[in-house]
Amino acid sequence: MGKNEREENGFDPENHNQEEEEKKKKQLKEEEHSVERIFENQEVPSWRKQLTLRAFVVSFVLSILFSIIVMKLNLTTGIIPSLNVSAGLLGFFFVKTWTKLLHKSGLLRQPFTRQENTVIQTCVVASSGIAFSGGFGSYLFAMSERIAKQSTDTLDFKKLSLGWIIGFLFIVSFLGLFSVVPLRKVMIIDFKLTYPSGTATAHLINSFHTPQGAKLAKKQVRELGRFFTFSFLWGFFQWFYTAGDNCGFASFPSLGLKAFDNRFYFDFSATYVGVGMICPYIINISVLLGGIISWGLMWPLIEDRKGDWYSADLGSGSFSGIQGYRVFIAIAMILGDGLYNFLKVLSRTLLGLFHQLQYKDMSSELPVADHSSDVSSQSQLSYDDKRRTQLFLKDQIPIMFAIGGYVAIAAISMATLPHIFHQLKWYYILVIYIFAPTLAFCNAYGCGLTDWSLASTYGKLAIFIIGAWAGAAHGGVLAGLAACGVMMNIVSTASDLMQDFKTGYLTLASPRSMFVSQIIGTAMGCVISPCVFWLFYKAFNDLGQPGSQYPAPYAVVYRNMVLLGVKGFSSLPKNCLLLCYVFFGAAILINLIKDLVGKKWGRFIPLPMAMAIPFYIGSYFAIDMCVGSLILFVWEKINKAKADALAPAVASGLICGDGIWTLPASILALAGVKPPICMKFLSRGNNAKVDAFLGS
Amino acid sequence: MGKNEREENGFDPENHNQEEEEKKKKQLKEEEHSVERIFENQEVPSWRKQLTLRAFVVSFVLSILFSIIVMKLNLTTGIIPSLNVSAGLLGFFFVKTWTKLLHKSGLLRQPFTRQENTVIQTCVVASSGIAFSGGFGSYLFAMSERIAKQSTDTLDFKKLSLGWIIGFLFIVSFLGLFSVVPLRKVMIIDFKLTYPSGTATAHLINSFHTPQGAKLAKKQVRELGRFFTFSFLWGFFQWFYTAGDNCGFASFPSLGLKAFDNRFYFDFSATYVGVGMICPYIINISVLLGGIISWGLMWPLIEDRKGDWYSADLGSGSFSGIQGYRVFIAIAMILGDGLYNFLKVLSRTLLGLFHQLQYKDMSSELPVADHSSDVSSQSQLSYDDKRRTQLFLKDQIPIMFAIGGYVAIAAISMATLPHIFHQLKWYYILVIYIFAPTLAFCNAYGCGLTDWSLASTYGKLAIFIIGAWAGAAHGGVLAGLAACGVMMNIVSTASDLMQDFKTGYLTLASPRSMFVSQIIGTAMGCVISPCVFWLFYKAFNDLGQPGSQYPAPYAVVYRNMVLLGVKGFSSLPKNCLLLCYVFFGAAILINLIKDLVGKKWGRFIPLPMAMAIPFYIGSYFAIDMCVGSLILFVWEKINKAKADALAPAVASGLICGDGIWTLPASILALAGVKPPICMKFLSRGNNAKVDAFLGS
Repeated sequence: MGKNEREENGFDPENHNQEEEEKKKKQLKEEEHSVERIFENQEVPSWRKQLTLRAFVVSFVLSILFSIIVMKLNLTTGIIPSLNVSAGLLGFFFVKTWTKLLHKSGLLRQPFTRQENTVIQTCVVASSGIAFSGGFGSYLFAMSERIAKQSTDTLDFKKLSLGWIIGFLFIVSFLGLFSVVPLRKVMIIDFKLTYPSGTATAHLINSFHTPQGAKLAKKQVRELGRFFTFSFLWGFFQWFYTAGDNCGFASFPSLGLKAFDNRFYFDFSATYVGVGMICPYIINISVLLGGIISWGLMWPLIEDRKGDWYSADLGSGSFSGIQGYRVFIAIAMILGDGLYNFLKVLSRTLLGLFHQLQYKDMSSELPVADHSSDVSSQSQLSYDDKRRTQLFLKDQIPIMFAIGGYVAIAAISMATLPHIFHQLKWYYILVIYIFAPTLAFCNAYGCGLTDWSLASTYGKLAIFIIGAWAGAAHGGVLAGLAACGVMMNIVSTASDLMQDFKTGYLTLASPRSMFVSQIIGTAMGCVISPCVFWLFYKAFNDLGQPGSQYPAPYAVVYRNMVLLGVKGFSSLPKNCLLLCYVFFGAAILINLIKDLVGKKWGRFIPLPMAMAIPFYIGSYFAIDMCVGSLILFVWEKINKAKADALAPAVASGLICGDGIWTLPASILALAGVKPPICMKFLSRGNNAKVDAFLGS
Repeated sequence: MGKNEREENGFDPENHNQEEEEKKKKQLKEEEHSVERIFENQEVPSWRKQLTLRAFVVSFVLSILFSIIVMKLNLTTGIIPSLNVSAGLLGFFFVKTWTKLLHKSGLLRQPFTRQENTVIQTCVVASSGIAFSGGFGSYLFAMSERIAKQSTDTLDFKKLSLGWIIGFLFIVSFLGLFSVVPLRKVMIIDFKLTYPSGTATAHLINSFHTPQGAKLAKKQVRELGRFFTFSFLWGFFQWFYTAGDNCGFASFPSLGLKAFDNRFYFDFSATYVGVGMICPYIINISVLLGGIISWGLMWPLIEDRKGDWYSADLGSGSFSGIQGYRVFIAIAMILGDGLYNFLKVLSRTLLGLFHQLQYKDMSSELPVADHSSDVSSQSQLSYDDKRRTQLFLKDQIPIMFAIGGYVAIAAISMATLPHIFHQLKWYYILVIYIFAPTLAFCNAYGCGLTDWSLASTYGKLAIFIIGAWAGAAHGGVLAGLAACGVMMNIVSTASDLMQDFKTGYLTLASPRSMFVSQIIGTAMGCVISPCVFWLFYKAFNDLGQPGSQYPAPYAVVYRNMVLLGVKGFSSLPKNCLLLCYVFFGAAILINLIKDLVGKKWGRFIPLPMAMAIPFYIGSYFAIDMCVGSLILFVWEKINKAKADALAPAVASGLICGDGIWTLPASILALAGVKPPICMKFLSRGNNAKVDAFLGS
């Protein structure tokens, strides 16, 4: 850097003008932090050359890996941390190994560039995104017979089959991409939206390709590999002791039997320890707090009123009994939090847009800090910005192509979707597709400001509106869930794409290659995710059962949400509606307080959304996550620098290793190989009985 | 050091004589490594001042700690690693903390010296030595009804009671001290015997009192404390899951149920992981090898011949059945190894003595390297040696005091011992006491050469001789075991005392203070050890039962040895005697090969003594020890210097923490507090049955 500065400024020996000098100084300072200066000598390959075959091979492998992990998270708790760092690290590791091997054998034709790295990242994120937005842990699984059987109505369900799931995903997943493509210049260059995740990913990728960054990346990859192996072997070891229900480490009453009965225990899951290390402390604390409030206080108190508040002879799984309180209060909190954040992000979106437009009219009147993209300040742009803008605008995607694509796909899906879901009439779809681009834009814009994708909130909106519109008699349950799927896919892919454009902008990757990579990634995801889900579905027969290894909490929650939308509050047990109102209000109030007290104190206030999850499934995973937090906390106390550099890699290793173990585990289950031993936990009394029984 | 050299040699500017110069150079070199130069300015306190009250208070606390640990090791496997480092570290830590506190409050009258540290060390070793030589895991416990019930004869037993055990120990434990006291000058100064353990302890103590050593000691103490806490808490945690037999981590079939049935499993014992880290690799490998040969190969093969070799309707605990093979083959190996080493050490002792005496007569004829203590070379002694010798010879213990003490105690014990054991006639005791000083000298000398105390071998000798002499009809079983106790105590304390004299010699502690400290320590041990044993005995009802937490393997072995001596081979099952001969011979052969092939290859040849222990109790502890070895091995690969400095502290922490946990555990057991949960391991089939049973 220092070298470049001197070379460029050395030819101007006479600069007496002080103002100019100050300007120069400022520019110099900016250039000291310039990233693009470092890469100045590297040629940026054309967009076609950014899309290499090896990139898509690696993406395919990683897509399978991350689809499995996301699917596992979907089906256990629904809490999915950002896996961008792991995807970035692993992508870098694979291609680097590949190119190194080729380089040694003299076959390397094209060096590994950051643009290619971004292409992989984009493709993997798009593909594994489908594992989330495909609704395998939520709306899609909620349609199935298994989940329907648990709730009060058992009529409206759709038999799951691999064929229609893949078809459905192909129809709805590409619309989001076309809906926001034309707006990329507005969002990235004109509005200069931050997109925190996309920016962080870009920084990561940029850092990998500097010599120092590559060294750190090597260390991180080694740490990831080490913990990957450990976590995989740990999963393997645990498997041997799980012959039967309530066997093995996942049922270890580490805090005592009484606590275990109320689902407080450390379940030795490497995944959630890793998730705890990635998630901010406040999320982990919120989850634990939610667990304590619900399973520690409320449920025992409500269960004391058994026979009064609800019929005593109902099974523990009935939604008219204690299970109803668990699910509906959780739904109330989720909806309260969702509504608050929806309104908040929407108002910020509108306010931001309003400022943006006003600012364009009256150039200098509104000195908003991050809106420095007007024409007058063009000349003040830093070297980085200039170069990035130049390359971002080089490869255009014609607007007509985008609009044409959107209309074509919309028409196809209007024609085909009602064949998959008879309950989903073509006019419902038309309405959704008319509003969708606006909502997609809102979500992409809001996500750029806050990093918070509200895809599932928009999905819930669709559930209630379409569910109520169709009505119970006309299959409103399935119509609502299907509409949720359509909406979620559009909105979610839109914000993902814009994040990727930001990453591409910061790594000089072409928007065209980003777009193509997204399309290929989405196509991969539409096949991989259903297949992975199908593997889980066939391998684990208790998928979706409360209390099992894979309770799929959101599937139950979505099912009951649509029932609420269709049937109203009639089926709720006594006092449940009152409690729901209280928690709905509390969720809004907590959010409001969090925003009002400012960042300093707000970061100590828990998040209602995170608190709601243990309401239904219990707080065992909250304890895992807090263990992860504790490890990170202690590590940071001992060696902050090392913890900051390596903790994400360690966490990724733990998550990936355990996640990948589910692949052999489900194959073993499919092959009918059963674990040989049961590690059982009995109270002293029961143990004496069992010993007598086995002895005789 | 450098400073001292210059000061002493600076006044001699003219040294042209080359020979003298070379001598000077040698001297200089020696002084560079001189330890006493560092301590030159420290005054050595008088022997009375070395014996402080605080030293004995600390010794008392540590004696209890180490008695518990040694007792636990006695009763689980009988493998007792050297706890000198832990005793040294903890002693240093306690007194240092104490003096620091006093120093801060201004009350410190006497600084903490290495002599005082040696006094503590000596006292603790003497006291916890009784926990071993008292035979609580061997001859003494072998007299009890519990062990007698397991073997073929159930008549000859003595009801254990705290009173006679303490009395017995007081009578027999002091003789050893008096028997070798007069020989200390011969052994330490004239023969210059190495006493590896004593020397190592002295180096440790010396290092603690240099500034750099104190810093390392602080690190070590911190590491010890950390692993002590971990190990204690781990023991505590494990306790909760042990409601009932075969419950908890100690029954974890970590290698599968089939391996567990053959006692191959990792039992999560922090103690034996620590022991594995202290013991040399070859011991751990030997133990594992022994386990594989016996439980992996021989026992399954012999069990296949059930009904042919031994009656099929015998219980698994009968000594006429499979248990007989286990115990007697182990005894054969132990005796083979013992005999070989006895002869080897005896021949080396005699040869050494012969050389020593010959050398004294013909000063210069025999240039034996380590016998440089003759009068002619007195002038060539290094500064260290001179100073040490001077102080060692300053405080004398009159010979008449030693002889008088020996005769007096011998007379008392001849009069009282037959009252405790009616079977032990006074003339047996007289014979033992006539030969004892010679054997005590042999053992002290052999130990000085090889660091191998043959106390238990001499004990076994007494078992067979006195047992056979008394005969079965006249209570030969109890007479033999009691004689073993008398012999072992004398021989063992003799070598311990001489080790301590060596430590004292190297740390400038007075022989008188060493002797007094030994006497006080022995007296403490005579009370503490029986009390600790009594705690175990009362708290754990299955003490001594095969397959239990505390199988006390050597108690069974000793019981069966005396039965062999008294009754001959008549009671052995078919082919057992043949196998015993084979293994007896093999033990001798392996030792012979080990000695013949030299150190380079010999270190890869296993030790028969170590191989014999798992023959009886199984190889679960061998796996623990190998895990310890593995940890140490990996640690050494990663950071050799750190591993060397800290591994003994970590191992000590693991052993001490787990050992101390047995104290609250036994108190809980005495108070009738039972653990609440059973962690049970069932095969899949059994688990299904149990689930059906509990469900109904």
